[in-house]
Amino acid sequence: MSLGLTNNQIKLIRNLQQKKYRQQHGLFVVEGLKGVQEFLASDFELYQWFTTDKSFSANAIAISEKELQKISGLRTPNATLAVFRIPKEKPIPSDGLIVALDDVRDPGNLGTIIRLCDWFGVEHLICSASTVDCYNPKVVQATMGSLSRINVVYTDLMGFLKGYSKDVFGTFMNGQTIYSEDLPKEGVVVMGNEANGISSEIEQLVTKKLSIPRFGKLQETESLNVATATAIVLNEFKRF
Amino acid sequence: MSLGLTNNQIKLIRNLQQKKYRQQHGLFVVEGLKGVQEFLASDFELYQWFTTDKSFSANAIAISEKELQKISGLRTPNATLAVFRIPKEKPIPSDGLIVALDDVRDPGNLGTIIRLCDWFGVEHLICSASTVDCYNPKVVQATMGSLSRINVVYTDLMGFLKGYSKDVFGTFMNGQTIYSEDLPKEGVVVMGNEANGISSEIEQLVTKKLSIPRFGKLQETESLNVATATAIVLNEFKRF
Repeated sequence: MSLGLTNNQIKLIRNLQQKKYRQQHGLFVVEGLKGVQEFLASDFELYQWFTTDKSFSANAIAISEKELQKISGLRTPNATLAVFRIPKEKPIPSDGLIVALDDVRDPGNLGTIIRLCDWFGVEHLICSASTVDCYNPKVVQATMGSLSRINVVYTDLMGFLKGYSKDVFGTFMNGQTIYSEDLPKEGVVVMGNEANGISSEIEQLVTKKLSIPRFGKLQETESLNVATATAIVLNEFKRF
Repeated sequence: MSLGLTNNQIKLIRNLQQKKYRQQHGLFVVEGLKGVQEFLASDFELYQWFTTDKSFSANAIAISEKELQKISGLRTPNATLAVFRIPKEKPIPSDGLIVALDDVRDPGNLGTIIRLCDWFGVEHLICSASTVDCYNPKVVQATMGSLSRINVVYTDLMGFLKGYSKDVFGTFMNGQTIYSEDLPKEGVVVMGNEANGISSEIEQLVTKKLSIPRFGKLQETESLNVATATAIVLNEFKRF
């Protein structure tokens, strides 16, 4: 028997597709069993869990396929959907390698970057206020559960960098090749907007400009996608 | 004055969203001025060019915004759309670094990988027959013009690798760390399917198994996205 969903629940969960309601309620949505399990295994606090497959958990509320379709943001809903509380941001430590995003707008890119931070052991990600919300359902989906392990902090990036005492790295066409630099274990790596790169105000706070060499014969490739550039930069910082 | 579009033209261009019609007609669509210009500057042969902005070129056929919307595959059409002929695949040389894709399905991933090949000077990309079509409009869009500079060949990947005499590289969880390997200037790098990685049949033809080390404390990140993994692997082969 399906216990069913109330109209209020449907409305709330649908609203959570939008940032203003996520912020108002302090809640966000995770879809699919793997993602839900990763958040359950983390410090995130579960608010409600719905499933069409009761074998997943006795704690989940049984709903029908039709009901799941009403609350899912996916074209093909994935058997289960949970609502979690948005956690408090943790303070950024002064040590370790930190990634900072200057106005990254694409949810897929932010999701991929969060996954890369997780892979490379970067636990803190600082986002400018204009960067896409990490609790956007497309971002949550793209992180494949990694969001449950990364501390994402939205802040005035310029203010943060002004108060930061170690090196601030950024990639620019005219930077020093990243292969020749002796990269430290600590510092902030800034990655920029998809179309415009790092903004001029933030560029002034970058203490070490790096570049990723380009090998194509024609040298016409305009730039790397910000997520693939992040992959290469983090690999260069972490490789041994 | 708009010269306008015939119904047959509209139907043809719309049909080119689908692989079977692209193959039947030997044509594909490029949208946006930057993309069109990159294909015009390449060896690709222009078939038809439509634009709402006659300042782009006297050779383009003027159409209205409304007409562009009828033929565009984009939610927000981008002023210009051109149809090019699908070129003949060039033979794969036996030297140099080559990338091969074993059943990559996501158009965004293929587009990003083509862009990475262009950046890292890899001129030939071999795709298994099941890999998404590189003339799929989403792939074309994601390559940002790089498709005009890369020779993409669809073939029986297993047959190709069986006849290949140099090393075949692939990334696996249990491979040798890519940082400790002395990577050659020549060889084939195989990247696998988004969900399943490299298939077992292709795995048997891999002569050197590599792995990208994972640094996260919890070691729970399941895997890297295939496009970001390709970025890291190509960077490792090319870095100096």
